[in-house]
Amino acid sequence: MSVNDAAARRIFKALDRFKIELPSWGFADTGTRFGKFFQDAAASTIDEKFHDAGLVHALTGACPTVAVHVLWDFDVAADATAHKRVAKLAQSHGVAIGSINPNLFQEQTCKFGSCCSSCEYSRAAAIRHALDSIDIGHAVGSKLLTLWLADGTNYPGQDSIYQRKTRLEKALKQLHAAMEKKMRSGTMLVEYKPFEPAFYHTDIADWGMARHFAQAAGKRAKVLVDTGHHLPGANIEHIVAFLLSENMLGGFHFNDKKYADDDLTLGSIDPYAAFRIFDQIAQFEFETAKQPGATPIAYMVDQSHNLKPKLEAMTQTVCEAQKLMARAQVVDRKKLATAQRKRDIVAAEMLLKEAFEADVTPVIEKWRKLKGLPADPLGELRSSGVIAKLGKARAKARKDRGETQASSYA
Amino acid sequence: MSVNDAAARRIFKALDRFKIELPSWGFADTGTRFGKFFQDAAASTIDEKFHDAGLVHALTGACPTVAVHVLWDFDVAADATAHKRVAKLAQSHGVAIGSINPNLFQEQTCKFGSCCSSCEYSRAAAIRHALDSIDIGHAVGSKLLTLWLADGTNYPGQDSIYQRKTRLEKALKQLHAAMEKKMRSGTMLVEYKPFEPAFYHTDIADWGMARHFAQAAGKRAKVLVDTGHHLPGANIEHIVAFLLSENMLGGFHFNDKKYADDDLTLGSIDPYAAFRIFDQIAQFEFETAKQPGATPIAYMVDQSHNLKPKLEAMTQTVCEAQKLMARAQVVDRKKLATAQRKRDIVAAEMLLKEAFEADVTPVIEKWRKLKGLPADPLGELRSSGVIAKLGKARAKARKDRGETQASSYA
Amino acid sequence: MSVNDAAARRIFKALDRFKIELPSWGFADTGTRFGKFFQDAAASTIDEKFHDAGLVHALTGACPTVAVHVLWDFDVAADATAHKRVAKLAQSHGVAIGSINPNLFQEQTCKFGSCCSSCEYSRAAAIRHALDSIDIGHAVGSKLLTLWLADGTNYPGQDSIYQRKTRLEKALKQLHAAMEKKMRSGTMLVEYKPFEPAFYHTDIADWGMARHFAQAAGKRAKVLVDTGHHLPGANIEHIVAFLLSENMLGGFHFNDKKYADDDLTLGSIDPYAAFRIFDQIAQFEFETAKQPGATPIAYMVDQSHNLKPKLEAMTQTVCEAQKLMARAQVVDRKKLATAQRKRDIVAAEMLLKEAFEADVTPVIEKWRKLKGLPADPLGELRSSGVIAKLGKARAKARKDRGETQASSYA
Amino acid sequence: MSVNDAAARRIFKALDRFKIELPSWGFADTGTRFGKFFQDAAASTIDEKFHDAGLVHALTGACPTVAVHVLWDFDVAADATAHKRVAKLAQSHGVAIGSINPNLFQEQTCKFGSCCSSCEYSRAAAIRHALDSIDIGHAVGSKLLTLWLADGTNYPGQDSIYQRKTRLEKALKQLHAAMEKKMRSGTMLVEYKPFEPAFYHTDIADWGMARHFAQAAGKRAKVLVDTGHHLPGANIEHIVAFLLSENMLGGFHFNDKKYADDDLTLGSIDPYAAFRIFDQIAQFEFETAKQPGATPIAYMVDQSHNLKPKLEAMTQTVCEAQKLMARAQVVDRKKLATAQRKRDIVAAEMLLKEAFEADVTPVIEKWRKLKGLPADPLGELRSSGVIAKLGKARAKARKDRGETQASSYA
Repeated sequence: MSVNDAAARRIFKALDRFKIELPSWGFADTGTRFGKFFQDAAASTIDEKFHDAGLVHALTGACPTVAVHVLWDFDVAADATAHKRVAKLAQSHGVAIGSINPNLFQEQTCKFGSCCSSCEYSRAAAIRHALDSIDIGHAVGSKLLTLWLADGTNYPGQDSIYQRKTRLEKALKQLHAAMEKKMRSGTMLVEYKPFEPAFYHTDIADWGMARHFAQAAGKRAKVLVDTGHHLPGANIEHIVAFLLSENMLGGFHFNDKKYADDDLTLGSIDPYAAFRIFDQIAQFEFETAKQPGATPIAYMVDQSHNLKPKLEAMTQTVCEAQKLMARAQVVDRKKLATAQRKRDIVAAEMLLKEAFEADVTPVIEKWRKLKGLPADPLGELRSSGVIAKLGKARAKARKDRGETQASSYA
Repeated sequence: MSVNDAAARRIFKALDRFKIELPSWGFADTGTRFGKFFQDAAASTIDEKFHDAGLVHALTGACPTVAVHVLWDFDVAADATAHKRVAKLAQSHGVAIGSINPNLFQEQTCKFGSCCSSCEYSRAAAIRHALDSIDIGHAVGSKLLTLWLADGTNYPGQDSIYQRKTRLEKALKQLHAAMEKKMRSGTMLVEYKPFEPAFYHTDIADWGMARHFAQAAGKRAKVLVDTGHHLPGANIEHIVAFLLSENMLGGFHFNDKKYADDDLTLGSIDPYAAFRIFDQIAQFEFETAKQPGATPIAYMVDQSHNLKPKLEAMTQTVCEAQKLMARAQVVDRKKLATAQRKRDIVAAEMLLKEAFEADVTPVIEKWRKLKGLPADPLGELRSSGVIAKLGKARAKARKDRGETQASSYA
Repeated sequence: MSVNDAAARRIFKALDRFKIELPSWGFADTGTRFGKFFQDAAASTIDEKFHDAGLVHALTGACPTVAVHVLWDFDVAADATAHKRVAKLAQSHGVAIGSINPNLFQEQTCKFGSCCSSCEYSRAAAIRHALDSIDIGHAVGSKLLTLWLADGTNYPGQDSIYQRKTRLEKALKQLHAAMEKKMRSGTMLVEYKPFEPAFYHTDIADWGMARHFAQAAGKRAKVLVDTGHHLPGANIEHIVAFLLSENMLGGFHFNDKKYADDDLTLGSIDPYAAFRIFDQIAQFEFETAKQPGATPIAYMVDQSHNLKPKLEAMTQTVCEAQKLMARAQVVDRKKLATAQRKRDIVAAEMLLKEAFEADVTPVIEKWRKLKGLPADPLGELRSSGVIAKLGKARAKARKDRGETQASSYA
Repeated sequence: MSVNDAAARRIFKALDRFKIELPSWGFADTGTRFGKFFQDAAASTIDEKFHDAGLVHALTGACPTVAVHVLWDFDVAADATAHKRVAKLAQSHGVAIGSINPNLFQEQTCKFGSCCSSCEYSRAAAIRHALDSIDIGHAVGSKLLTLWLADGTNYPGQDSIYQRKTRLEKALKQLHAAMEKKMRSGTMLVEYKPFEPAFYHTDIADWGMARHFAQAAGKRAKVLVDTGHHLPGANIEHIVAFLLSENMLGGFHFNDKKYADDDLTLGSIDPYAAFRIFDQIAQFEFETAKQPGATPIAYMVDQSHNLKPKLEAMTQTVCEAQKLMARAQVVDRKKLATAQRKRDIVAAEMLLKEAFEADVTPVIEKWRKLKGLPADPLGELRSSGVIAKLGKARAKARKDRGETQASSYA
């Protein structure tokens, strides 16, 4: 199915607004608990991470910001001037710093949790780190604080779920108050995940809990939907529609999964499911008479590629997201409303499926050309030889620095 | 492990307060979509259903009320006098009418949903039926309205999730207002279920949505947790702890499952998981300095036994629930708090596991004897020959009435 | 992506060979355990079922045979002459009888299983019914015996899994021996399902068990893969590839699911997953130098539509299957082999994804026109008004016969 | 329920035969992909690992052997004399070397798989390592080769499933032939796992595939069931019963899980499910008139404890396994057979549930005293202060060696 003019106009508008944040950690060597497989071209330094994000942005025009991981990308002990230098480094690669991600899971103090821990010292350390992260956000001009808490327990009885909930509410209120001062117009994103690394219970296990904690924190807090963080069978687009209608959807972490939290390329396992998320967003904009793409949502990628070349995977993800989002614009929502009103299931379903199968590539290519971008960013990247070149240079640099590619997670 | 005196006292108190409502439909022939297997002793009439519930109550002393299903147990068209006659019938069997269950899924008008349907007529019919149910509740003195909505869609695009949510909020507000007048001190229970009979999306799919709709309905509305209505892996006791801490847990539908909503006997597949629910309730009472069993929760059984004799299955369920609840009282919660504070995982875990394995039978038997009940209700029932006797009589009565037990898939 | 000439030729060849059997029960009213929603146009008689199957075949040219359900479509007590009359009835609607499906789950004797039951009488009845079904197969010239056993248990301990396995092996050997005489060149298809209607254990729970029982039965027995009969996350295309490489794949029951065995239209929930099944078949043909579509596989639909109009759903399913199968022919398998050899994940993956997104519609339409078929069978059906006409006629006929469409849960 | 004399005798016999192998890696620091939490008392050297295993054996009398991980515990390049020194080291701690575990997942050559890889060099390296492992097994007198292949792919199309299967069959045949020479009376254990670290397809994904590859390898190969390696809902005891009846069950990796492969203590999440595995083994011995515990099965623990003190967790696991196994001996199997024959579901189920709840502790304590073991090994360990002492000594030793506890997986 080709795309009509009205749909093409919607796609153009939506593409203009569709910004996808890349994660700095997505360019570094990472792995599974069974080990890491190293890549010569993996980024080792914050400079290299920004470089790579900048490269994907140059190719796609859709990735102006980079999510940073405070523990891996910043010197928490440094002052605002140092932090601003990091922001300038990003700018030198054509990107800006986006969401600030405190690390509340890696330090030994996090063994029994961060803000939920029964250990007062651990809680204080966690809150301290999050406050430092807010300071960094303030220094670099970020508008987003992303909170993923790995907090949970591994065994029944290990801790009081009731008290952990109370502790978390208190901590989030404190962080929210700090944001009021330091990241005044910013948004606090509260992420949820059913399991891993905690294996019996996770303190923010699902969207209902995330929504609760966000509301308990304060008005700037919203829910972050990581597409990989759901139990088998969960209807993610339903959750998205629900959060949108309550004005509680803050953003996404894009990835795909077949089993657990597998960090695969968005749409690589179930592209129709990913499309249906964009469909619900477009449907919400239709129901509330918004312009295509006008809903303020923080789109972010959260993928750690163990096998795929990282630059390829990121570029592929951005292109796939654009394609799926564009297809959601193809749905004729007036016709859909009619079919729904007539309870004509097959007609309604076919409107979605045909849009999902619509050939939006020519429209997207046209949009890219208008923006001075390569028509096929992934092809461009792959044929450019840049990854091989980077691999050579970085392997040498690593060697010159006397480094080996070591197994710490990121 | 045997039980110490303090625990025994807690068990006695908790057993005194632990009332478990039986479902009228749990005594009738039911089946899977592949067919029904009939039982001679299955109840066919409301009189027989009350008889059977009364028998289980006589054996266990724990089941003073019966959940009724409006469509199957009442004549909706009849007046309050007729409804009161049904209540008297229950009384004649030693039980009272408990929760009122409107049927919002079976009529042909429910094909595309009840309160969520895009069909105005279907919505009106559903609300009418629910209002009639409230009238019945008023007439028979019930304090509980249980709302299970099978509403949902089978295919992406079939209906607007956004609009269905709006329609449901509106309907629940209307029903809540009616309850304010007719079932003034009653509770509206909002049930959730991830799938079946809807296969793509269910309008009240999880506890987060149920909580939302309950809050949208009004202050009398709370969440009903059916233990079989969760996606694989869901940590139900976590949800229970969460709802308790928010004063939003209205009640339970007890059953067990291995795969989907399998309607098996509580604790028959994963008894430790069922125990952990009672553990969270006892823990909540400990944290909030309540007496054992003092939290107002509507405990109800929702099981349709296809193979097990229904009277046996119900009696077994009640005894199993009492046993698991009693074990939760065995946990030494001060010791547990200490172990949790020390982050001594093994000690904390063992306190739960040892309580789960504690031999509470002598204590429960003592409690039963004090109440003039048989020490072993299930054994008593099985050795009494009553099921065989009922089977003979009911088979004959059915024959005399010219009825057959019929069922076919297609 | 459009399709090149080589791919188009492969598609033509594969479409010529791609026959999809429709189930007689797919045209009748069916439902969930919560009730049935009736359709005026639902088929009530075997004549109407054949009519409807014939109509889908006339529209698609791909469905020459109809799967019959012995209990619902035949008079088991009748003789070969009567059975042959049924076959002629099918012919009069332009279709032939395909696979024979004994019913081993519905009768009261199946309460504790059929061939696996500990009840000798039940086993004998089941085997008798299956032998009768083989006689019917013989009489009507069928080459396929499809065995779905609902056998299993609902509770741990209910029966000896060990002995049930032994009983089943024995029964299948007996049936296989009977096939040797009566359906000599036929295939026995052994289906598996993880759960439902049995809720604790199912005797043929997965493909590994089905393969075992097929091998134990004899050389004519193969595995039947119902796409809806898997645990969450199961990689079905992997199982398909495995069975193909062992020459043990007998056929498919097509449908889709989001949660359990939901009987949804093939490809309606996860079309890419359905495509990957066809991809593995095409890959197998590439690896073993077979012609496109030359692998002997019995493709069958097994869907019971509760909400969608049945004729629409069946036609949609056939068209969707053709489209997905055609797309699998688009994959450039030489290029794929090269990318795989180079461990170029992104290139290999993109070859699949691009084929999945290829616009094969023009090629399929061309093939249809060549065969004298409507280019868009579903559109043709929907615009023809035939369903409304059938609905009127059948509603009247039902009324004239004094029939009601009945159904109740409890 | 207390235990009668006949059951007590069965328990004694079964305990005498019940040996549980501990994994060397279970005493070392390990973690999740999100990081490791270090323990002072964690073992760093093979000497410390044997020491810890020896300690658990001294406490329980049930763990005479230790599973070794070739890459972490041996110098593959060393000769037989060196390997024998390792075996002697084990003996010096009161244990012997048990199963040999080649590492086919950690090296950079395993990036795209080991024996299944499309890379000839990787396959050769994998087979070389496995052959070296067989040599080590030969040198140290092991009778078990445990093969866990992490092989798989992350994306559809990444590699040819068909060819990977062929490559694996060939490799296993080669290794089996080598075992015929070097570990003549040994058993090759083929493990399966549905996912992780591979995220799209795993070459040995389920028991059906493991059985296939074992049979393809040769007569010494059997299936290894890791209790954590199943899709949600899988009925593991059914698989166990199936494999036992085919003489294809080689052994177990014990652990528990709530979500994915969570490496939790056996029975910590679902003790009844773990009991049912032992029940099927006991049932098999009843059906085939074997002595309790006489079936040759390699019981092994595979748990990596991130939070629990490792020595505690291992001791707890062994005690839990003994308890659950003992309870399976309590089932009165003649009564059970009668109840099953009568299709008396409740009676049959209660026989299992009562056995599961039976108080076997006095019997096990008696058995321990007879063997000169502490009645409560876990209590003994916890009150001994040995973990704190080891922690101090090992922290100091680590410091003296200038080591830090680093993040490589094991």
